[in-house]
Amino acid sequence: MEQVYVSCTSLDENKRQQASAQSETTQDKLIICNERPWKPWQPARSRIRGCAMRVQRAMLSLAGLEWYCYAALGVLTALMSFWIDLTVAKLLRAHQWLYSRLEGHVLLQFLCWTLYPACLCTLSTSFSHSICPQSAGSGLPEMRTIISGVQLPDYLSLSNLFAKLVGLICTLSAGSTVFLGKVGPFVHLSNMVGAYLHRLYASACGKKQRRTQGEMLVVASAVGVSSCFGAPISGVLFSIEVIGSHYSVRDYCPCFFAAVCGALTLRLLAVFSREQETVTVLFKTSFPAEIPYQPSEILIFIFLGLLCGAVSCVYLFSHRWILRFVRTNKFISRFIATEKALYSATVAFLLAIVTFPHSAGYYMASQLTMKQLLSALLDSTQWNSISHNATLLGESHQFLWQEWSPPGVSVFKSLGCFILIKLWLLVLACTLPLPAGYFMPVFIFGAALGRFLGEGLAYLFPNGISSETLSVINPGGYALVGAAAFAGAVTHTLSPALCALELTGQSTHVVPILIATLISNAVSRSKHQPSFYDGISLIKKLPHLLSLIRASPKLSLVQIGQFVVPAGTVLQRSEKVTGVQNVLNNSTEFEFPVVDTHESPTLLGTVTREQLQALMLENQNEDLSKSLGDVCLIRPVKLQLSTETTVKQAHCIMSVVREERVFVTERGKLCGIITWQEMKKMIEVLAEEI
Amino acid sequence: MEQVYVSCTSLDENKRQQASAQSETTQDKLIICNERPWKPWQPARSRIRGCAMRVQRAMLSLAGLEWYCYAALGVLTALMSFWIDLTVAKLLRAHQWLYSRLEGHVLLQFLCWTLYPACLCTLSTSFSHSICPQSAGSGLPEMRTIISGVQLPDYLSLSNLFAKLVGLICTLSAGSTVFLGKVGPFVHLSNMVGAYLHRLYASACGKKQRRTQGEMLVVASAVGVSSCFGAPISGVLFSIEVIGSHYSVRDYCPCFFAAVCGALTLRLLAVFSREQETVTVLFKTSFPAEIPYQPSEILIFIFLGLLCGAVSCVYLFSHRWILRFVRTNKFISRFIATEKALYSATVAFLLAIVTFPHSAGYYMASQLTMKQLLSALLDSTQWNSISHNATLLGESHQFLWQEWSPPGVSVFKSLGCFILIKLWLLVLACTLPLPAGYFMPVFIFGAALGRFLGEGLAYLFPNGISSETLSVINPGGYALVGAAAFAGAVTHTLSPALCALELTGQSTHVVPILIATLISNAVSRSKHQPSFYDGISLIKKLPHLLSLIRASPKLSLVQIGQFVVPAGTVLQRSEKVTGVQNVLNNSTEFEFPVVDTHESPTLLGTVTREQLQALMLENQNEDLSKSLGDVCLIRPVKLQLSTETTVKQAHCIMSVVREERVFVTERGKLCGIITWQEMKKMIEVLAEEI
Repeated sequence: MEQVYVSCTSLDENKRQQASAQSETTQDKLIICNERPWKPWQPARSRIRGCAMRVQRAMLSLAGLEWYCYAALGVLTALMSFWIDLTVAKLLRAHQWLYSRLEGHVLLQFLCWTLYPACLCTLSTSFSHSICPQSAGSGLPEMRTIISGVQLPDYLSLSNLFAKLVGLICTLSAGSTVFLGKVGPFVHLSNMVGAYLHRLYASACGKKQRRTQGEMLVVASAVGVSSCFGAPISGVLFSIEVIGSHYSVRDYCPCFFAAVCGALTLRLLAVFSREQETVTVLFKTSFPAEIPYQPSEILIFIFLGLLCGAVSCVYLFSHRWILRFVRTNKFISRFIATEKALYSATVAFLLAIVTFPHSAGYYMASQLTMKQLLSALLDSTQWNSISHNATLLGESHQFLWQEWSPPGVSVFKSLGCFILIKLWLLVLACTLPLPAGYFMPVFIFGAALGRFLGEGLAYLFPNGISSETLSVINPGGYALVGAAAFAGAVTHTLSPALCALELTGQSTHVVPILIATLISNAVSRSKHQPSFYDGISLIKKLPHLLSLIRASPKLSLVQIGQFVVPAGTVLQRSEKVTGVQNVLNNSTEFEFPVVDTHESPTLLGTVTREQLQALMLENQNEDLSKSLGDVCLIRPVKLQLSTETTVKQAHCIMSVVREERVFVTERGKLCGIITWQEMKKMIEVLAEEI
Repeated sequence: MEQVYVSCTSLDENKRQQASAQSETTQDKLIICNERPWKPWQPARSRIRGCAMRVQRAMLSLAGLEWYCYAALGVLTALMSFWIDLTVAKLLRAHQWLYSRLEGHVLLQFLCWTLYPACLCTLSTSFSHSICPQSAGSGLPEMRTIISGVQLPDYLSLSNLFAKLVGLICTLSAGSTVFLGKVGPFVHLSNMVGAYLHRLYASACGKKQRRTQGEMLVVASAVGVSSCFGAPISGVLFSIEVIGSHYSVRDYCPCFFAAVCGALTLRLLAVFSREQETVTVLFKTSFPAEIPYQPSEILIFIFLGLLCGAVSCVYLFSHRWILRFVRTNKFISRFIATEKALYSATVAFLLAIVTFPHSAGYYMASQLTMKQLLSALLDSTQWNSISHNATLLGESHQFLWQEWSPPGVSVFKSLGCFILIKLWLLVLACTLPLPAGYFMPVFIFGAALGRFLGEGLAYLFPNGISSETLSVINPGGYALVGAAAFAGAVTHTLSPALCALELTGQSTHVVPILIATLISNAVSRSKHQPSFYDGISLIKKLPHLLSLIRASPKLSLVQIGQFVVPAGTVLQRSEKVTGVQNVLNNSTEFEFPVVDTHESPTLLGTVTREQLQALMLENQNEDLSKSLGDVCLIRPVKLQLSTETTVKQAHCIMSVVREERVFVTERGKLCGIITWQEMKKMIEVLAEEI
């Protein structure tokens, strides 16, 4: 297309095109020119059009277009989240109904229990892989990479959105048997919606476009968490943690705004669908508000933080081991490469056998869904004391408790079985090549860990730890603290602490939750162990610089020198008009660096293609001996790096200043350029070195 | 001191000094050498010393020294906060006791009511101004400036800490008469403690020092809010908002850690002093948890956000007007310049006359302290309905309610008087030249605004807005939402929303609070109106770039060209050894730029003073004709800006990369350098232009 500009006539044509394009501003686009053929109801249509334009103007005078995009992002993701939840709940109820109708026929029950999740996992895998193979997995490590500035193809496409959505619903409908969650893929979905909205926004704004896609993706990450849990604050904190090294405070208000839009829509939808009476939290708890815990219990919360940190290390190690094993073992890697669906079916079948309620599932409350598991674990009553007086409980609570303490099995035994078995089942489930989140399972596992400690304490101190005041131990509080601490330790983040608060509304426990999360984070971060997402990034060799540097800090000293590429077409100051014309003909770049001479390429600045075209137009009839330096304004380069700049510094500067390309000079001489493509290559090379 | 290095003998001396300094690592410092004169209990002392060293080693293997600094910062500020609160409460009780003992003697009561705050304000003003004039005011605008990278003298000194501490206690003890708060100065105090701890840390770490003062100050800002309110999360959000343009995610965990340490210590101190039974929030509320509000009430919360935004505009305008009036009016500005203490006494006396309980104070609950005012406003019972059945309330609640609804005055009248009169009193109080915070008054004023709306609604809809469910309107909820929205609008931040949540623990209202705060922020930020702190920055002409750019966005296009200063001593590549010696003798710089020739100063890189000294040492006996370029490794400059870089970009890059000085080149030729001092000058020039 750019080749058109060469001849003089086409340049005139081009000017006219530009002029007409300028007159077609956004507002004028709505007015259809009068030369069109006759259409019915002309007056009514033009009146409606006028109204629409006035509304549009009024709306744009109230706030910029980007704010409507943020609001739309919040509302759309909340609608999507609600629809996913509704569909999954129906599919889960169908499975439960079928299973209960087969009561008495163990074989049929076994088939129902095992084949249902196996089929769903197969469907999820084959669907996502046939439409968009990039839709498998959580998607969060890839999103972190994209937000850090490196482009990955197909991760933000609409086909990926469709594949991930359907795959996620299938995965979630497999229920607590495969024990996988929603957050990670949902944040990915929200990012895809965000990227799509940004494309619309960019096309509506044209060249005035002020917000970049990166900003929209940061907002979309916050919205993802917020619309998933109805938790705006933890969404914003998540977006701060996910971004990497420097958070632009400019994104802070948009993040909050979009997150609140998402959370409000999600909660209002629950009200309108008669699920709840008013705007409230997802997991209602009833902790005692007067004396939620004794001050001395803080020491136990600290211990719980240490415990969660230690268990998270075991989990993270096993997770990395199995991921590496699956990739390196010849048989399994070939099996997965060729028969993904069959692999999913096999693993889901295996998981279902273990959790079958007539086998080991009897000891680990396997009939409860993920939501019921968490609700049960956050219950504030002491299960161990109920066993003597079960009729005191409400009906729903009694059902949950009976699942956790079936006849002949104590609460401790079932919690212990759950903790010991689920850990390995979860590690196995993480190898499934389907869209799935790993946050909620980890959160529930942490809750079980905390509950186990809480129940143990309640057994040891039936009248509370301090005998002075009458406050008994609340195992639900321990479960909440454990959940936040374990999820925080696994992901190396602090936003799960806020998430625990917002999910339950239990602000009484804010200090213990934060303490335990900080301590578990400290334990799991010791000795440069990678987090859950960092581990996946490293094993998948994603070009995510921070996870590489965290895994091997010496990489932060690597310099960009070896990765610099030549700067493409370079003009010299004494370039004649004919030379400029050649350059315009043979290259498609938008901006050209100008150096002193090709022999001693001291970088003088840049000229744009438009400048050169104007220059050609002015000088077409004059003499061709004038040089570029005399007739063209060379703009100095705002920012130059040297070959000794480290990759980390270059990455940081480019992402903060939002530069697409930076010139690299040495002793004033142009060495080359660094663009995001080179940055990606650099990080990929570094990833290979680990 | 650096002149010593020139001669050869002194160079040797220097080498020896360096060697001995290196052997004196931190751990070895504790061992006192054995040549010292005899001291008693040698064995016991050495054993204790050995133990201390082992403990030190164990602690440092557990976490870096900086983490202990963060913990110390949290604990110290919490202790300081608790001590301030305790002292202020005693002084306030003394005043209340004296006033109540004078019951029946109106004249004596008048004198007691007016002279007590006037004396305290005089004391606060004269004390702070005689010890450190920089201790007056909130200190937050200055802290924002310092955190953005620009140094201001005396703002982090120990004398300022002492003056501000005593001054703040006096101001707070003047009570709700002068209606000033604690947060701003306390954040400043916390920053001073942080700066002091950083000096200790830097001296202990020596050259290995990894964390900069800027990072410590960001953490200290979070701790300030956290230790003041026991609210860690809003502390962290505050530190993100205060930082300016880019928040380093590296500071995120330290902020959380220190903030939790502060909040925990503050709350534990309350437990140990028998104020509270367990670790709990500062303002206990008892909102109905089952149905906290009807979904339709969200529309009213939105209206409340708009109202708070509009009132905040009035307040901000008046505040800026009075600050400018005080500075420009000849009489008052001369009066303040010469007689600060008398001015404070006069204003405090005037304020006390208006709030005297036998005058207008009767209609605005002036006998309540700031804490009581907020507790009363957040009460969940409807005051208007109590008036018919007052005996139902508890004793403390009845006292608070009686103050708000004294005989013959309806709740609406007293709330209306409070809102109408306090606004202007607060604007007047803001001119007082003493250490004082403006957040809490604004927060309480917002609560009154919300309460007024809530009481009005409760009067209009006595059975709740929706007749379907039995949930009556909770005016306390409106007060909470109003407080967050108004404080957020005045400061242009969102952290007050979190602060409101953490102060009361009312997580049921998280969505309305966030919605109202976002909307009030949108209203108050419209048309580039400066925030409360921005307004002070602009009027005081502080070198804070972001507030300037917010006030006049075209300043973001100003280029650094006109501000670049020459780069001091510049070496040329062909410099001979004798020339180098002259340079070393005549300059004190640590690093020298090297150019091609002085006539065509193409920047080649830099050499350090140490390199040059080594060079001199090697070549002292050889021929002196060798040039610098042949014998010395010239390190390329990692980052170069051009004269066309904007001030905003340069500021952003320098603060993100944490560079002390950046070279400015044009067409490869060295133009000069930019350091933080030049940056400060640039911003001061820009501030003059507004």
